[in-house]
Amino acid sequence: MKTYTLGLDFGTDSVRAVLVDTDTGTEQAAAVFHYPRWAKGLYCHAPSNRYRQHPLDHLEGMEATVRSVMEQSGVPKASVKGLCVDTTGSSPLPVTREGTPLALTETFSENPNAMVVLWKDHTALAEAEAINNLARVWDGPDFTQFVGGIYSSEWFWAKIMHITATDPDVGEAAWSWMEHCDLMTYLLVGGGDLQSFKHSRCAAGHKAMWHESWGGLPSKAFLDALHPGLGSLRDRLYTHSHTSDESAGGLCPEWAGRLGLNPGIAVAVGTFDAHAGAVGAGIGPHALVRVMGTSTCDIMVSDAPELATKAVRGICGQVNGSVIPGKIGLEAGQSAFGDLLAWFGGVVAWPLEHLVYNHPVLDESQRLALREDLEHNLLEELSRAAEAIPLEEAIPIALDWINGRRSPDAHQGLQSAMACLSLGSSAPHIFLALVHAICFGSKKIVDRFEEEGVRIDQVIGIGGVARKSSLIMQTLADVLDRPIRVAASDHAPALGAAIYAAVAAGIYPDVGTAAARMGSPIEKQYSPRPKAAATLKDRMKHYEQLGALAASLTQNS
Amino acid sequence: MKTYTLGLDFGTDSVRAVLVDTDTGTEQAAAVFHYPRWAKGLYCHAPSNRYRQHPLDHLEGMEATVRSVMEQSGVPKASVKGLCVDTTGSSPLPVTREGTPLALTETFSENPNAMVVLWKDHTALAEAEAINNLARVWDGPDFTQFVGGIYSSEWFWAKIMHITATDPDVGEAAWSWMEHCDLMTYLLVGGGDLQSFKHSRCAAGHKAMWHESWGGLPSKAFLDALHPGLGSLRDRLYTHSHTSDESAGGLCPEWAGRLGLNPGIAVAVGTFDAHAGAVGAGIGPHALVRVMGTSTCDIMVSDAPELATKAVRGICGQVNGSVIPGKIGLEAGQSAFGDLLAWFGGVVAWPLEHLVYNHPVLDESQRLALREDLEHNLLEELSRAAEAIPLEEAIPIALDWINGRRSPDAHQGLQSAMACLSLGSSAPHIFLALVHAICFGSKKIVDRFEEEGVRIDQVIGIGGVARKSSLIMQTLADVLDRPIRVAASDHAPALGAAIYAAVAAGIYPDVGTAAARMGSPIEKQYSPRPKAAATLKDRMKHYEQLGALAASLTQNS
Repeated sequence: MKTYTLGLDFGTDSVRAVLVDTDTGTEQAAAVFHYPRWAKGLYCHAPSNRYRQHPLDHLEGMEATVRSVMEQSGVPKASVKGLCVDTTGSSPLPVTREGTPLALTETFSENPNAMVVLWKDHTALAEAEAINNLARVWDGPDFTQFVGGIYSSEWFWAKIMHITATDPDVGEAAWSWMEHCDLMTYLLVGGGDLQSFKHSRCAAGHKAMWHESWGGLPSKAFLDALHPGLGSLRDRLYTHSHTSDESAGGLCPEWAGRLGLNPGIAVAVGTFDAHAGAVGAGIGPHALVRVMGTSTCDIMVSDAPELATKAVRGICGQVNGSVIPGKIGLEAGQSAFGDLLAWFGGVVAWPLEHLVYNHPVLDESQRLALREDLEHNLLEELSRAAEAIPLEEAIPIALDWINGRRSPDAHQGLQSAMACLSLGSSAPHIFLALVHAICFGSKKIVDRFEEEGVRIDQVIGIGGVARKSSLIMQTLADVLDRPIRVAASDHAPALGAAIYAAVAAGIYPDVGTAAARMGSPIEKQYSPRPKAAATLKDRMKHYEQLGALAASLTQNS
Repeated sequence: MKTYTLGLDFGTDSVRAVLVDTDTGTEQAAAVFHYPRWAKGLYCHAPSNRYRQHPLDHLEGMEATVRSVMEQSGVPKASVKGLCVDTTGSSPLPVTREGTPLALTETFSENPNAMVVLWKDHTALAEAEAINNLARVWDGPDFTQFVGGIYSSEWFWAKIMHITATDPDVGEAAWSWMEHCDLMTYLLVGGGDLQSFKHSRCAAGHKAMWHESWGGLPSKAFLDALHPGLGSLRDRLYTHSHTSDESAGGLCPEWAGRLGLNPGIAVAVGTFDAHAGAVGAGIGPHALVRVMGTSTCDIMVSDAPELATKAVRGICGQVNGSVIPGKIGLEAGQSAFGDLLAWFGGVVAWPLEHLVYNHPVLDESQRLALREDLEHNLLEELSRAAEAIPLEEAIPIALDWINGRRSPDAHQGLQSAMACLSLGSSAPHIFLALVHAICFGSKKIVDRFEEEGVRIDQVIGIGGVARKSSLIMQTLADVLDRPIRVAASDHAPALGAAIYAAVAAGIYPDVGTAAARMGSPIEKQYSPRPKAAATLKDRMKHYEQLGALAASLTQNS
């Protein structure tokens, strides 16, 4: 009899459930649910980089997508042996003593500070700086050493400090905090004691400075020195963390009922989307898997024993077991990738939003048709026009730091810039400059891994951008001056989660074996074009100059 | 019996004729003609900053507008006593030995190099650099000293050198070259000997390095050192130059017929639009008149005797009589002003042009209605949205050098840049940053005049932007931290030309007397707002930092 596992992938805009055949990795059915509150822009404020998500978006989405894949596939629920949740991260939220998200209590149901503080929220810049300043002078281990040496405002502790300091009501009511992937898993196994619950190694190691060498989370003294009371929160968090080949528990009856699954099936320890995606794409030593969407996550694994103690400078962490148990998982990434192009799409869509869609010459059906068509096609059309511009033309130079810089050397206070703008710089010229910028940003990450002695033999792309944008992928191959392979799966993170679930359910003995059977095939390869590679190498020098200049402007402002 | 004069103002996009009552300055009738070939983008290539105009656009426009004002006004032609032409500049074109524009000969009728090389054409960057390099080492007078010390690629000699070097056929066929204002005047008086024709002092002094102290144009040796043969062109140009209170001759019978005027009436010596505009706006000592349109021209006059010999650094020249005969006319300007905003309008209009106006859900009449409405309203709507943004918000920083920098310190190779861009930077935020940029650029010019000892007691704005954009004018008052008065005339350059014509026709003894009677009243004053002025003063520091950084990027590229 065939068996199946479920991967549940909570992305920035939507959650996706995929039901996977554990024997072949075939994706039996998939369903997507776009978060309705998020889609309306609720609880967010772009000018101050505040991005929050209501957990109801996630719970409703989980139920809708799992029910949908079960229905579509016709697979009997007895054949589904386990599931695993991956989410964005670091995306923490405050919970009560009973493990209830504050935003699900009446008092805080509309308070953005009680919700998931999404990965790309940058309200905690000052707090990240405080953490870095303290870490530099701390008389004890450098707790930031295994997260690249710089703690980011995108991460766990900075966000907790920021909310606690700016919204004392939430700070007071928060008995503890959980990463999004832990919360979903915790709810699925029916809750229980928060401290003994199996927290994600991936989240703990990459975002909360958890490391075995100093006994878990940073010391109480360090945390108290950061913010009074933060040390006592440490006691209410966790001591151990766990890899996603382990089961966090059986699916509880309540959620079994809501999802239409059998109670008691294995719920694997939660993890982050990029790390699960790397597993789905068939990562192995010396392979760089890039999850390319709104941002990028760049994942590697290494079995080099020195990486357990030698810190790699300026990346987002090296964590034993964060991808494949027993190997060091390395993470880096760009804070904005597709987001940079989407931002520009939003800029040029301003006249559409404000002058076209509500124009009196249009009737209702035309408005809807135009909006639907343009919302879907704008970036694609810009991309097509940009692709037609010869690289010899005058193309502006841009930076990809529209949402700060994650790697190398996290600095979320940095901002984007453009130079070499002339009257001839059209929208497609700027779009092309932005495509170059995100690829130059990628190259800086690849260069840093190699400078730090982490060998890269192959690059695999997954995610929406990898599968859809030949302009970006070809440019990336040119800029990196090496081939890039694209995984065939549309759902690599969910597939990776299903692989973890298959191990947690006991179907396979380990992640490597499961991934070899269930992992995605490669569907395409982009090869570098020598002439374009040479031109872009020259242009990259200007990118680096502009970067240095923009960074000095940030410092001065 | 009432008498009238005509001002003919050839701008970048259109020509305008205004019929003015010489007693009161009342604008009896006005007509505008948009250049049809120019409107189609013919002969231009924005990516390489090539901007050329076919003289047929001008000749057709002259006929259409003069005929229109005569018809509209019902003024008998016997009452029209004179006319004067002002044009953009430096906008030279090659002519045959007979004074025929090469572009009006069969061989060259479609060759952009045989046409008017418009002021904003920047193809002659290398040639301007060669002129500056030679001037620095020349064993003789510094011929650039009275044009600010830096010769610009926007000017006469650089453009002639560039065309001659890159299109030898045109170089060979060009017996001589004329500024646009001289050509139009030359044709109106019926042609004749090119060398004894009364050339414009304004054009000669500000753009061709003509100065009395070295006997007119730069020496033959200097010109030959620049480019073989350029010295002999000097012999075919002119020795003397003339102010616009003089008559260049009587209107010739042919053009009298074409325009519907009496032959023999005074045709004043031609001039540039900004200088005529300053006269129309009532310029006097210590007043800065800013002509604010696609670019700015900043005009002052001074009767300080030291300015006849002491050079003012980094402006576009100081020329005896270029505005008011007997006084030194000073010119500075920004290469892009409204053009910077129009450029951004074009960037955000990309989806309109490429996806909306040709969308199949629209019928023909809707397309036209949408296009017409949006083309007229886009910048205004962006402006309105930008005006609503509090200055405390995060607003990007931009440079106004989208078409290079004219003043202070001409450097047409500079380009624009933007920094401090984040995901929250919307189209109106960027628009506001660009408004700030053009005002900061204005402040740099005002500062330079004052640093060089040229006192400024009042600022008067004329031109489309001055009369239409309260956002820009208020921001400018805030940035300059002084009041700005706006002249009421919609046609200050044409009015100024009509004032010159009234003197050339003998109706008034001098320009000062004529301007006192005929000049435009002030219609409005913008006063600086202290709080905004303080905020913008801080922001201007970032503009200056970004400027220094962008300039270093240009140097390195």
